[in-house]
Amino acid sequence: MVKKPFPIVVGVSNRHVHLSREDVEILFGKDYQLTPIKDLGQPGQFACQETVTIVGPKGSIENVRVLGPERKETQVEISLTDAYRLGLNPPVRDSGDLEGTPGITIIGPKGQVTKDRGVIIAKRHIHMHTSDAEKFGVKDKDIVKVIVEKGDRKLIFDDVLIRVSDKFALEFHVDTDEANAALLKTGDIVYIVDF
Amino acid sequence: MVKKPFPIVVGVSNRHVHLSREDVEILFGKDYQLTPIKDLGQPGQFACQETVTIVGPKGSIENVRVLGPERKETQVEISLTDAYRLGLNPPVRDSGDLEGTPGITIIGPKGQVTKDRGVIIAKRHIHMHTSDAEKFGVKDKDIVKVIVEKGDRKLIFDDVLIRVSDKFALEFHVDTDEANAALLKTGDIVYIVDF
Repeated sequence: MVKKPFPIVVGVSNRHVHLSREDVEILFGKDYQLTPIKDLGQPGQFACQETVTIVGPKGSIENVRVLGPERKETQVEISLTDAYRLGLNPPVRDSGDLEGTPGITIIGPKGQVTKDRGVIIAKRHIHMHTSDAEKFGVKDKDIVKVIVEKGDRKLIFDDVLIRVSDKFALEFHVDTDEANAALLKTGDIVYIVDF
Repeated sequence: MVKKPFPIVVGVSNRHVHLSREDVEILFGKDYQLTPIKDLGQPGQFACQETVTIVGPKGSIENVRVLGPERKETQVEISLTDAYRLGLNPPVRDSGDLEGTPGITIIGPKGQVTKDRGVIIAKRHIHMHTSDAEKFGVKDKDIVKVIVEKGDRKLIFDDVLIRVSDKFALEFHVDTDEANAALLKTGDIVYIVDF
């Protein structure tokens, strides 16, 4: 097993919603502007003060965080644990790849909207700046393995997507199921391995 | 990487409760007998018709399945996702190892009981009959790695505990967080690997 000697910081993504301008106005009111409260690991991305309730055929989840900035299309990212609770069967997908994904109802303080698609379980991935990709010897859309070496639930994640952009910072994104299966928390360190 | 060529069936454990005789009587009434509705993968173990509500400092979860037969001490097995929802911080432990674990309140139809210990996140493990252990070349309490080769979230679990007994059947037990991180379902097949 060959381990690349460059530490990668973990970012655990809890369930969250990206909203289109149209849906911001439906849920929060005309001309409403989202309120940033915390910068995320990726430049320009932020958590908002606003939360919504998401409703599926079998249940609902309150206090789901809205992330900014606004996007072209509304996207709801949940864990598979959440999916069972809601009664949905979303695929594991890269962000933005919404073809054929299930819909959901979103409730805000000023209104609600029922989307006919947009729910995904995020594919685990590593954001990398172009300079990082050179260092690691990988390119956009490569699939790599990531090792968790500390704790009582050590493991090696396969099927980790590489995403490269001049706008990205080096960060390994997993959802809460994946984090809990490995006892990972935001800020932990992992490594790419090959064998 | 060396893969042992013997398939192991997966059993996904949802949150559940094992009850002592005393707690069965508190929750369901004097002389109450649990009602088996489904045999589990391990000989003599069964799911019961009865469910309870478990209550932590931050939340509660209803319809938690009781598993039988009764045990000497009540034990509540939850996922780390559940633990956050309840506001508890249980350790990853082998079944029965309850020293220093957090307590919880359990509510049944006839009463409720507050335990001062007994909540664990189950350590992932493989049950094996003595004859399986010989075949695999492992012994009780060994730690092995298990590979998930199918699906969109392939991975290798490390820190998998081997448990050997004449009363066990060959089965890999994970909780729902672990299953969801690998897209595993009960009945799927995995393998022990070494490297």
